[in-house]
Amino acid sequence: MTQTVSKSERQIPASSVRDDDSAVVDVDALSRALLGKWADIRLQARELAGREELHTPAGLSHTEHRERVMTQLKVLVDTKAVHRAFPKYVGGEDNHGGNVAGFAELVVADPSLQIKAGVQWGLFGSAVLHLGNREHHEKWLPGIMSLDIPGCFAMTETGHGSDVASIATTAEYDVEKEEFIINTPFRAAWKDYIGNGAVYGKAAVVFAHLITKGVDHGVHAFYVELRDDNGFLPGVGGEDDGVKGGLNGIDNGRLHFSNVRIPRTNLLNKYGDVAADGTYTSSIESPGRRFFTMIGTLVQGRVSLDGAAVAASKMALKTAIQYGTERRQFNGASDIKEEVLMDYQQHQRRLLPRLATTFAASFAHDELLQKFDDVFSGAHDTDEDRQDLETLAAALKSLSTWHALDTLQECREATGGAGFLSENRFTALRADLDIYATFEGDNTVLLQLVAKRLLADYAKEFVGADFGVLARYAVGQATDRTVHRTGLRQIVQAFADTGSEKKSAVALRDPKTQRDLLTDRVGTMVAEVAGALKAARGLPKDKGAAVFNANQHALIQAAHAHAELLQWEAFTRGLERIEDAGTRQVMTWVRDLFGLSLIEKNLGWYLMNGRLSAQRARTLGPYINRLLAKIRPHAVDLVDSFGYGPEHLRSAIASGAEKARQDEAMEYQRLLRASGAAPLDEKILIQRKKQAAKAKR
Amino acid sequence: MTQTVSKSERQIPASSVRDDDSAVVDVDALSRALLGKWADIRLQARELAGREELHTPAGLSHTEHRERVMTQLKVLVDTKAVHRAFPKYVGGEDNHGGNVAGFAELVVADPSLQIKAGVQWGLFGSAVLHLGNREHHEKWLPGIMSLDIPGCFAMTETGHGSDVASIATTAEYDVEKEEFIINTPFRAAWKDYIGNGAVYGKAAVVFAHLITKGVDHGVHAFYVELRDDNGFLPGVGGEDDGVKGGLNGIDNGRLHFSNVRIPRTNLLNKYGDVAADGTYTSSIESPGRRFFTMIGTLVQGRVSLDGAAVAASKMALKTAIQYGTERRQFNGASDIKEEVLMDYQQHQRRLLPRLATTFAASFAHDELLQKFDDVFSGAHDTDEDRQDLETLAAALKSLSTWHALDTLQECREATGGAGFLSENRFTALRADLDIYATFEGDNTVLLQLVAKRLLADYAKEFVGADFGVLARYAVGQATDRTVHRTGLRQIVQAFADTGSEKKSAVALRDPKTQRDLLTDRVGTMVAEVAGALKAARGLPKDKGAAVFNANQHALIQAAHAHAELLQWEAFTRGLERIEDAGTRQVMTWVRDLFGLSLIEKNLGWYLMNGRLSAQRARTLGPYINRLLAKIRPHAVDLVDSFGYGPEHLRSAIASGAEKARQDEAMEYQRLLRASGAAPLDEKILIQRKKQAAKAKR
Repeated sequence: MTQTVSKSERQIPASSVRDDDSAVVDVDALSRALLGKWADIRLQARELAGREELHTPAGLSHTEHRERVMTQLKVLVDTKAVHRAFPKYVGGEDNHGGNVAGFAELVVADPSLQIKAGVQWGLFGSAVLHLGNREHHEKWLPGIMSLDIPGCFAMTETGHGSDVASIATTAEYDVEKEEFIINTPFRAAWKDYIGNGAVYGKAAVVFAHLITKGVDHGVHAFYVELRDDNGFLPGVGGEDDGVKGGLNGIDNGRLHFSNVRIPRTNLLNKYGDVAADGTYTSSIESPGRRFFTMIGTLVQGRVSLDGAAVAASKMALKTAIQYGTERRQFNGASDIKEEVLMDYQQHQRRLLPRLATTFAASFAHDELLQKFDDVFSGAHDTDEDRQDLETLAAALKSLSTWHALDTLQECREATGGAGFLSENRFTALRADLDIYATFEGDNTVLLQLVAKRLLADYAKEFVGADFGVLARYAVGQATDRTVHRTGLRQIVQAFADTGSEKKSAVALRDPKTQRDLLTDRVGTMVAEVAGALKAARGLPKDKGAAVFNANQHALIQAAHAHAELLQWEAFTRGLERIEDAGTRQVMTWVRDLFGLSLIEKNLGWYLMNGRLSAQRARTLGPYINRLLAKIRPHAVDLVDSFGYGPEHLRSAIASGAEKARQDEAMEYQRLLRASGAAPLDEKILIQRKKQAAKAKR
Repeated sequence: MTQTVSKSERQIPASSVRDDDSAVVDVDALSRALLGKWADIRLQARELAGREELHTPAGLSHTEHRERVMTQLKVLVDTKAVHRAFPKYVGGEDNHGGNVAGFAELVVADPSLQIKAGVQWGLFGSAVLHLGNREHHEKWLPGIMSLDIPGCFAMTETGHGSDVASIATTAEYDVEKEEFIINTPFRAAWKDYIGNGAVYGKAAVVFAHLITKGVDHGVHAFYVELRDDNGFLPGVGGEDDGVKGGLNGIDNGRLHFSNVRIPRTNLLNKYGDVAADGTYTSSIESPGRRFFTMIGTLVQGRVSLDGAAVAASKMALKTAIQYGTERRQFNGASDIKEEVLMDYQQHQRRLLPRLATTFAASFAHDELLQKFDDVFSGAHDTDEDRQDLETLAAALKSLSTWHALDTLQECREATGGAGFLSENRFTALRADLDIYATFEGDNTVLLQLVAKRLLADYAKEFVGADFGVLARYAVGQATDRTVHRTGLRQIVQAFADTGSEKKSAVALRDPKTQRDLLTDRVGTMVAEVAGALKAARGLPKDKGAAVFNANQHALIQAAHAHAELLQWEAFTRGLERIEDAGTRQVMTWVRDLFGLSLIEKNLGWYLMNGRLSAQRARTLGPYINRLLAKIRPHAVDLVDSFGYGPEHLRSAIASGAEKARQDEAMEYQRLLRASGAAPLDEKILIQRKKQAAKAKR
């Protein structure tokens, strides 16, 4: 991860952009830049997502919604919108990046449709693809692709979600009958929240501990038939999860298994197999690494959610910003004409930093998608590539899904009562996306994974250093908390305390300053936690765990900071690819707004650790306010570059309806005044009386 | 407002509480303290809210939900749960505080039920009560109370919400027929989001500009009949707002009026009347003050929402914290038993500060309710009392409604997939409460009102000072941004830079330190903005507005800080009333957690302005972490003190279901191990093989 940082550092001249207040955004060019590598597929998917047959009117019952989405899935099959990742030998395209690019756009039609498609082809189908062998592929993938076999991805249990290694379902090998026996031995082991589980699923990939010859070889995946046309097969049972906070087009349910027998060959055996005689073999010796390799093949879910969250944020901001430039409220400068909302500083503060973060998340998603394609196409598929991909996906999915919820909510509130009506779509999108923050890996758990990777990388830097160095480092942390010994410290120190307010502002917009500040924070936080954790070495397990726990919050904060840095880096690299000068100018302000908002959010840290002087810190807020005013005139161009049309937004207030109403009202008032029939305001009457009384005296 | 601060400052000894780690919470005593003055009414309302007939199952269509809530309202009538605020001469109790206390608890049954009751009795009925005369009361209140007249509060228009003064509906007096003619002259003037508007409303209090003799006397309220059994009356029309993000038990709709004639006496004429000959009279000469007086009588809505938001936060935290002490996930200290979620530092960080804020909001609501009762009972009803009440209501409603949304969301995420199921109630409560942030006054607009009051108070402090003092102050702000001249500066300076880490922590838990830091921030921010705004004096209106706008964000931040201080003060006063030593000890930690979390959130400000030294700032995070660990063992007692039982929570995971599942799973594993049939973990097998190979060598 750290390599990424230093690589791009060389690419950007320290001060490449001059301010040009007459800059104009080339909306089409920016649009193209945002579409990324798989632009054509993305546009095809948007065309599809704009079709009415894939939309769902508000107010359907959850059973009606489920039926509608099931029908819509068939449209996806017919238009071959969801087969791109599958192998050519079953009719796919072996196109992993393109597949996810198209899939992420489906959120625009209806998140239920997207996630139901994700369950069928992204999870159920992908598990057969990535964990099974060619025989499995040829046997089951055609039915999965055509939807003849609606299926489930039965991993999560009521008792264990993100902690997959601890699930309790078992698959025990019976050597006599050459079968596995699937059991969920107690209530907590029931598979839960399983899409297609309540009604439609005919088969499932079931995750269970593989037991053969008395040994538990850890979690493996098994293909299990669930239902025929008459309902559950013998030994299989379950119940409906019922109505949910969102995604009610999907029939989530619980499944339980009692001595359900499946053929030995239904084990998806790519990473671990059982011979007829019960002998277990695997190409990966370490059970831990084997587990993470199997789970790692499913990273696509996180990549997809990251993309979908970015798309939803874009839709919300287009609607809220469009409305904000039409809606007028409260007399400010004028007695007659009210201000448009977007001209209020607070409205800018609410929407524009979120717009900046959305661009950052969009560029970062693009890089994630490229990395994903590199790994799954085999172009760059080392162990390290896979680890990088997993860390990147965990980091970006966490931030972008939280960001989408935050943005949808802010846009809802920024559009007032109108934002609360289903016809303007914020509330349903938010309700649907809510679960994105905890499924496919709980965001907090994912950030902890990222943090562990950062700690591991940090430890590697000290390989070769003798213990003395490490110890001194830790001691340094403890005794002198304002002087840090990371290499970055020196870079930052150089601009910490000099110059006038104007000079400070110039320094803050220097991308090198922003990068140094963001990078330094990650590095220092990781080093501090690493130092604290060294104390846990050699302690008994419970005491070691207590030390770790005492640093958990700091660790997760470090991961968060790292993920933000990754977004900032991606934005900055994205900026370099923009050729039109005006667009690049405006987008540079947007990138600066993103970077400086991050620094403002963590200002306490920067000051507490001597990274910014108090004087410079005081220039930050005013400078951000000036950036907002600069970006404001381009706000509509910026959201237009997202490329979503009325068929995607389907929001009454994104359509110009508010402007039409305002125009009608103003024209009415104008005509009334012109006719001389307008009543006199009592306030003016009072003023006139006072003046008359004064004149009399 | 500043008076409140200095008054209570005298009441608290600087260091009244010693740490006692063996402290125990007396749940019943704390419960009683939280019930406040109208404990009996609150308990009656909770009994009612626990009845199944007032609950609504998930998955109803919006039309079914509307019908159900309409039926439930009749239960409220029959149990006399909603008549307390009305005058004795129509069968009420003249009990304003008690009425709101009981009303706020209805959110526990179903927010739709609460808000529908609020529309009927709290808005429609209250408008007739507070804006009409005794004749109006006797004519309409009985039917309103009995629900014979389901009615609307028709204030908001599509074009104008929180900006009530700018609505465009007119009521023009026709002297010949002695009637008012109501018109909504264009689409933006339609009444919108009106509860009871789509289906059930038979009458409405319509807010419109009163025009007589060619003069517009500003917004007044008129009683207008809407429908008979055959539907809309002539000239009245409207449409359904349709499905919403929440509160779908209420039939919100749009209403428009075309030359609808009503008798002159349907003007609710308490603050302004029109004689038969068209002469306008009012007891309040200034049109501005008259408007704010009329609107001010409706403050009850904000007080109620504040209480409801606190109740919803309490329910959410009870469920999430209960679950957090039962749910086990990931092996930390032990190989066999997983940790309960509440023992993870990050889980504590997510839930306990929100618990602390909920207590603060609860105590603050109690004071607001008392203030509300003082004004409306007439016990303390000066102009200043009314202004204080309005400012307090605006400040607290904003913070508590945002807090409820934030808390419901964090609790949803902290309970993972289970939290997303409707059966655990977080998602529907959050969806319903979403609109609380923008109705009865948009939170951002309300905070701006608070800020303007702070600026006015600040200006008053300088009454008598010559302009030279004021100018010097402003110059001081501009030239020396680290030395501030408020009186508070000296207090804070005294503890900013001295002492060891331990001493720092001791200082931080001193309530005087917390108060000084919080107070200083409000005072300084207000002074800074006031200084900046002085520059706008004498400028042309547009330029003055631009200066104001450039300070809008800072102004709203100041109001936010002020509202937090009010909560902290109320918590601290509430603490004094707790007599049990153990309870007081634990609640002191909780108050400290609240206060220090506020300071941590704004650490950048404190450092930037020299109010905390970097060294002390570094002790803050670790000290908060220690507080979390101290409070953790009392978490369940604290949420139990909220007093909500299973009939209120109605959440599967608040019921101990998770503990039963965990116990069953552990017992199964224990028996399996005891039987000798447990499979051997491959990891252990590998270890044994390695050891055997080693032994061979």
